[in-house]
Amino acid sequence: MKSFHSIDGSIVAPRGFLAAGLFCDVKRLGTGKGSDKGQKRDLAVIVSEVPAKAAGMFTTNQICAAPVKLCVEHIADGNAQAVVINSGNANACTGPRGLKDAHEMAALLADELLLQPTDVLVGSTGRIGLPMPMPNIRTGIREIVKELDDDPSAAHHAAEAIMTSDTRAKEIAVEFKLGGQTVRIGGIGKGAGMIQPGMSPTGARPASAPLHATMLAYLTTDAKVDARTLRTCLREAVASSFNCITIDGDMSTNDTVLILANGLAGNKKLSASDLKIFQAALNHVCLELAKMMVRDGEGITRMVTVRVKGAKTQKDADDAARAVGNSALVKTSWHGGDPNWGRIIDALGYSPAKVVEEKVDIAYSAAGAKALIHSLKKGRPTKATFNTLCKAVAPAEFDLHINLNLGKGQATLYAADLTEEYVDFNKGDITNPASLGG
Amino acid sequence: MKSFHSIDGSIVAPRGFLAAGLFCDVKRLGTGKGSDKGQKRDLAVIVSEVPAKAAGMFTTNQICAAPVKLCVEHIADGNAQAVVINSGNANACTGPRGLKDAHEMAALLADELLLQPTDVLVGSTGRIGLPMPMPNIRTGIREIVKELDDDPSAAHHAAEAIMTSDTRAKEIAVEFKLGGQTVRIGGIGKGAGMIQPGMSPTGARPASAPLHATMLAYLTTDAKVDARTLRTCLREAVASSFNCITIDGDMSTNDTVLILANGLAGNKKLSASDLKIFQAALNHVCLELAKMMVRDGEGITRMVTVRVKGAKTQKDADDAARAVGNSALVKTSWHGGDPNWGRIIDALGYSPAKVVEEKVDIAYSAAGAKALIHSLKKGRPTKATFNTLCKAVAPAEFDLHINLNLGKGQATLYAADLTEEYVDFNKGDITNPASLGG
Repeated sequence: MKSFHSIDGSIVAPRGFLAAGLFCDVKRLGTGKGSDKGQKRDLAVIVSEVPAKAAGMFTTNQICAAPVKLCVEHIADGNAQAVVINSGNANACTGPRGLKDAHEMAALLADELLLQPTDVLVGSTGRIGLPMPMPNIRTGIREIVKELDDDPSAAHHAAEAIMTSDTRAKEIAVEFKLGGQTVRIGGIGKGAGMIQPGMSPTGARPASAPLHATMLAYLTTDAKVDARTLRTCLREAVASSFNCITIDGDMSTNDTVLILANGLAGNKKLSASDLKIFQAALNHVCLELAKMMVRDGEGITRMVTVRVKGAKTQKDADDAARAVGNSALVKTSWHGGDPNWGRIIDALGYSPAKVVEEKVDIAYSAAGAKALIHSLKKGRPTKATFNTLCKAVAPAEFDLHINLNLGKGQATLYAADLTEEYVDFNKGDITNPASLGG
Repeated sequence: MKSFHSIDGSIVAPRGFLAAGLFCDVKRLGTGKGSDKGQKRDLAVIVSEVPAKAAGMFTTNQICAAPVKLCVEHIADGNAQAVVINSGNANACTGPRGLKDAHEMAALLADELLLQPTDVLVGSTGRIGLPMPMPNIRTGIREIVKELDDDPSAAHHAAEAIMTSDTRAKEIAVEFKLGGQTVRIGGIGKGAGMIQPGMSPTGARPASAPLHATMLAYLTTDAKVDARTLRTCLREAVASSFNCITIDGDMSTNDTVLILANGLAGNKKLSASDLKIFQAALNHVCLELAKMMVRDGEGITRMVTVRVKGAKTQKDADDAARAVGNSALVKTSWHGGDPNWGRIIDALGYSPAKVVEEKVDIAYSAAGAKALIHSLKKGRPTKATFNTLCKAVAPAEFDLHINLNLGKGQATLYAADLTEEYVDFNKGDITNPASLGG
């Protein structure tokens, strides 16, 4: 039984958090005056009214954006109180100037909020390689602090401001009890393209890291949690959520998940059972945000949960799921509603995972359901008719179950189809450079 | 200076080879009578009039089609005299029956040609998981042997018969001198989709194998070459041609390259310098066929030769090239004519290859040309204008040069853009199952 329930307000649902989002014309390098002139918001701020513990997970891409480098540095002490995020420019591959710009963003917000710059974190998403339009950002930061509010509409504005190719804002909050106290976790996120995150706490690539958008997620909680516990909990939550999604198999230079925990719920030090409840709630928030990203992926029409079990090792399970979830041919067959198990087993066969044809089971179920319709058992087609299998893969969301029958390795990957719209969107229009994607 | 020149006739250009291609209705499981009724040909035979030495390279996909298993077995002794190939059905994941069917195909042709079944090789390409329509195949093999001919039109019919989603037949032949004797090498091939071959001589995956259509290529030569030398030469030629192409990053269950060498040129045992000439000619034949496959890849509008140098290791160079050449975002930008170096460096950064942002050079040139237009030097954008870079990536074929400046590893990958047409073709039409792709 779930020990938490959903509430409104996303990142301002926990006590003591304020947010804002406005338009400062990051992308067009124009003459934005920091006010929302009916244009898409592109600057967000999240702030805790009191000092907070903080943890983060960052892209393991070797090409890593300036704001990510800043966050790794500023979060090392486990403390942070505010985040400033822009969309429209990734501030990636921008050299020493980019790093200086990221630090200026932190310093400007710190100055406005009377914080230490090292207690401010920065996030950016958009096209790679362009200098940050700092005049616009400076004006924007001066303006946005006047709009900070704990009203859900303020959180919604922040969620809108971090969107790039997203078609809708991604927000969630839950409430639960920890030792008698009411605790809340809220979050906002953005995804859409360049999505196959593989994040670690320092951005360093562990030997075992999945090599695989910009996805950004910002979490707030009023739970009282020490920094080390917060880091452990975030790492676990990200491992089974954001690090398990793929839209196009491209890992971004900017992937970032941050959590601020300001302790205003006033709970006692977490007991082992409290910790389980907190972890479960955090896992839920992260997984729901992650799934929102897949559902709103660029041009996608279907989300497919690839559930691999029976792999020889855990790594094999992950490799097998990613080979299937990133195969152009599998993804296009999903788009066509074609239950083409041949392409699935082909992808399994070229994955690094150990696969034995005569042992492979492939089945479908409704999303999250247990009743399976097998297309393949022990490598041989079942008697399920083409029409039956077509019905199984027709819904906008369904589960694909793969049992390699070789061991105990399991993995779940939230994947998407590949559509003409994805191609059309990402090929862009070179006659209108401002329209080109990240 | 090239020591060879192009001639007509492809696989029948070398002395003593016959070919044929006809329609026997493999795909529709219909009532084909083995005659070409104006339908697309789908059965091909290539035969040497005298016993020949033979070598092959086969998919390293762990899920490996029945005809591949048969070839590995029949070619082990270095001898073969004929090949029978069908399109429309891959005979993959067809269990013991599929293997029996492949063996029956070899036995039927052997029977007609008075050969040993073990001297007959088999190839199949098409949808995975469907039983072979053996009645049609049996009639087809009986009919096709009557049409065997050494006229170039017969070779062209064979080249047509192995096509699936290919829009045109792929044929080549060259002639050169070996120790005073005129020697010829001819070849036909097919590609189009599920193309990122990684072949080895036994289909076993070497530790260092690239983990990455059905592509089929059949080569003939009248050179006198012993089986071991032939195998070594083929392996080297495939390593720098077919194993260096990617259309969609999906490695097939059926990839196969075969060569038959019947010795009718009457050359002496190859000297070291002869061997170089033979290898150069074979490399040329394989590379030209491989490039024809990329140019005719499903829906593609651009072929991009990704040339990586300065990688820390050879494997790093290959990994870097494949990360770029298989990135959905890089491929869609190529389709759009967008010189988006941000997506390229992003892909390099998440590849397993060691990459240091401050060292990366990215440049373009006309296909095969030396004059480079840099978009990035040492990780920083050059002064090349957006329009200049757009012009560089506008041609249907261009080269992308990446220098990681970390070592001596080099790799070349022939890659393609990703288009709406690719998606539309491969999503298929489930209301017409016979139209669905492999």
